[in-house]
Amino acid sequence: MMDDTKDFSMACPAPASDYRQILLAHGGGGTLMHRLLNQVFYPAFANDMLGQGGDGAILQVGGSRLAFSTDSYVVQPLFFPGGDIGTLAVNGTVNDLAMCGARPLYLSAGFIIEEGLSVETLRRVVDSMRHAAMTAKVQLVTGDTKVVEKGKGDGLFINTAGIGIIEHDLSVQPRSVKLGDVVIISGDVGRHGMAIMATREGLAFESDIESDCAPLAEPVLDLLDAGIEIHCLRDLTRGGLASGMVEIATTAGVHIHLEERAIPVREDVRGACEILGFDPIYVANEGRFALFLPEQDAGRALDILRTHANTEGAVCIGSVTDGRPGLVTMTTVIGSRRIVDMLSGEQLPRIC
Amino acid sequence: MMDDTKDFSMACPAPASDYRQILLAHGGGGTLMHRLLNQVFYPAFANDMLGQGGDGAILQVGGSRLAFSTDSYVVQPLFFPGGDIGTLAVNGTVNDLAMCGARPLYLSAGFIIEEGLSVETLRRVVDSMRHAAMTAKVQLVTGDTKVVEKGKGDGLFINTAGIGIIEHDLSVQPRSVKLGDVVIISGDVGRHGMAIMATREGLAFESDIESDCAPLAEPVLDLLDAGIEIHCLRDLTRGGLASGMVEIATTAGVHIHLEERAIPVREDVRGACEILGFDPIYVANEGRFALFLPEQDAGRALDILRTHANTEGAVCIGSVTDGRPGLVTMTTVIGSRRIVDMLSGEQLPRIC
Repeated sequence: MMDDTKDFSMACPAPASDYRQILLAHGGGGTLMHRLLNQVFYPAFANDMLGQGGDGAILQVGGSRLAFSTDSYVVQPLFFPGGDIGTLAVNGTVNDLAMCGARPLYLSAGFIIEEGLSVETLRRVVDSMRHAAMTAKVQLVTGDTKVVEKGKGDGLFINTAGIGIIEHDLSVQPRSVKLGDVVIISGDVGRHGMAIMATREGLAFESDIESDCAPLAEPVLDLLDAGIEIHCLRDLTRGGLASGMVEIATTAGVHIHLEERAIPVREDVRGACEILGFDPIYVANEGRFALFLPEQDAGRALDILRTHANTEGAVCIGSVTDGRPGLVTMTTVIGSRRIVDMLSGEQLPRIC
Repeated sequence: MMDDTKDFSMACPAPASDYRQILLAHGGGGTLMHRLLNQVFYPAFANDMLGQGGDGAILQVGGSRLAFSTDSYVVQPLFFPGGDIGTLAVNGTVNDLAMCGARPLYLSAGFIIEEGLSVETLRRVVDSMRHAAMTAKVQLVTGDTKVVEKGKGDGLFINTAGIGIIEHDLSVQPRSVKLGDVVIISGDVGRHGMAIMATREGLAFESDIESDCAPLAEPVLDLLDAGIEIHCLRDLTRGGLASGMVEIATTAGVHIHLEERAIPVREDVRGACEILGFDPIYVANEGRFALFLPEQDAGRALDILRTHANTEGAVCIGSVTDGRPGLVTMTTVIGSRRIVDMLSGEQLPRIC
């Protein structure tokens, strides 16, 4: 979880933590994780790149502007409807690069295998990675394998890091978000989290909910090619839409207002969320992103997004308004107005 | 273990594996790991970069030649004489980039934390990383944090990936190794492995054996700046000197001959190895590398290496001779000649 907030690359002020031990919730993409980042990681590694608050770091190397990002994947179970840990490990990092406005080029992969994992399982995961890399047009160029004793891991953990090249002059980051910007979401929310949940708990809903796990670079590069003035991109993974919005509002110092009625949620996902007591705007996605851009570009952006299978459900869900900096509010389906907070942890641990 | 062979970047023919489950030995940097790579990973990710057999991938991005490498660190215990998992995670990846002949620039870091780890431990490790990054002149620019349930991890695993820039025109890789090349080693071998072993088993030797963990980019860049014609570099981590030599002999298709008498081993390390039944040439190092270069450059290279604290013990230990391609032989201290094989696994699991 937490690709979207991109841990170290995210600057979010939070009060001091008084926890002495790491809790599961520290990995959930919510306020507890941000406290840990602010207390332990940012002070140690303070530099300009870390402070950008994007999904990865933007680097000047030689004559090129590059994006660099990493994520570890610890999802349980390893296989779920719509994907597996291998699909996730490729698409997650590809999407982090895309969210920097970069063209993803190369991935590394580090495998931490628990002794006793079947070679056949490893083979299936690697085959998924091969397929996902081909689809996303990236090459896996370097890797590493470690094995830990039985009981010291959990089948398989995968880390990927990625390099992308930035071929435009825009500064795609939370701080570029401006008053009046429109918020577009690329499709319906909540599917990845509910697919994992249903598999993990052995729940059968009316229909199979498949993860939305998908690569997002192509639609983003099309928007850039068309000259759409993208201010900020954010994939909506750990912590879901709500956490992504709070992170951007905080980092950019703006007030974001959303229309709940406009946020697409599939009926089966909404039903599953209701049964289990989840709010779909907090549920993790692996193929959805939010886009901040000037209102005059919104129509054209929607037209472009709707030509791509992975973003054909794109709609406007809100805007950056004149209000309290750092705040996210939402007009609910019944017409009331509520504050959208970040959760302290995550509704579902080990979602990615 | 296995930074040096750089897993995927290493092309080493090996027979088909008939194991159905992953064993600890599959992570040891020996023949079992190479079988797994050849059977599962290489066929899936076949591309030019993976076939280079170096410590990382060499990429053309924009107008620059970059090195890209990754390693996961699963060392136990987390803290040992001479370093900790944090020092290792920075220096290991810095050294993989240096072994590509690159100037290390940027690192990513992915943390997989077991629930219950003390925040104080995490803080100490992060502080070591900060210090190691400063010493090695690299910046940690992006990261990720995941938490897994108690009993599903082992305290802390860290993955780092690194980007370096190649500022010369040499092709530093096993396939550049030539008949007549001299093999230089940058210092004494076996310290890292024996330091871990002593700590893990609670053994007290006559003196404290400290890990040799250190960054190696500065001496390498000095050699390149001086115009030394470096053919190949290899850090001698998982599987030690012996495995590194076998990998290069195999990938380059050359015969390497070593002089055991010339290989520096500290007396306390030799003593500890004898007591425990280890051969120091198979024991992992974290601050040692081998260098292949033309004989006429060897004297100058040694002079340069001896000006750096981390490589002041550099000596010639062998050469590339006219013999059977893929074979490594050694004249032993008693004057006999033996074949140096790769082990099937690793003498010590979870050494890095």
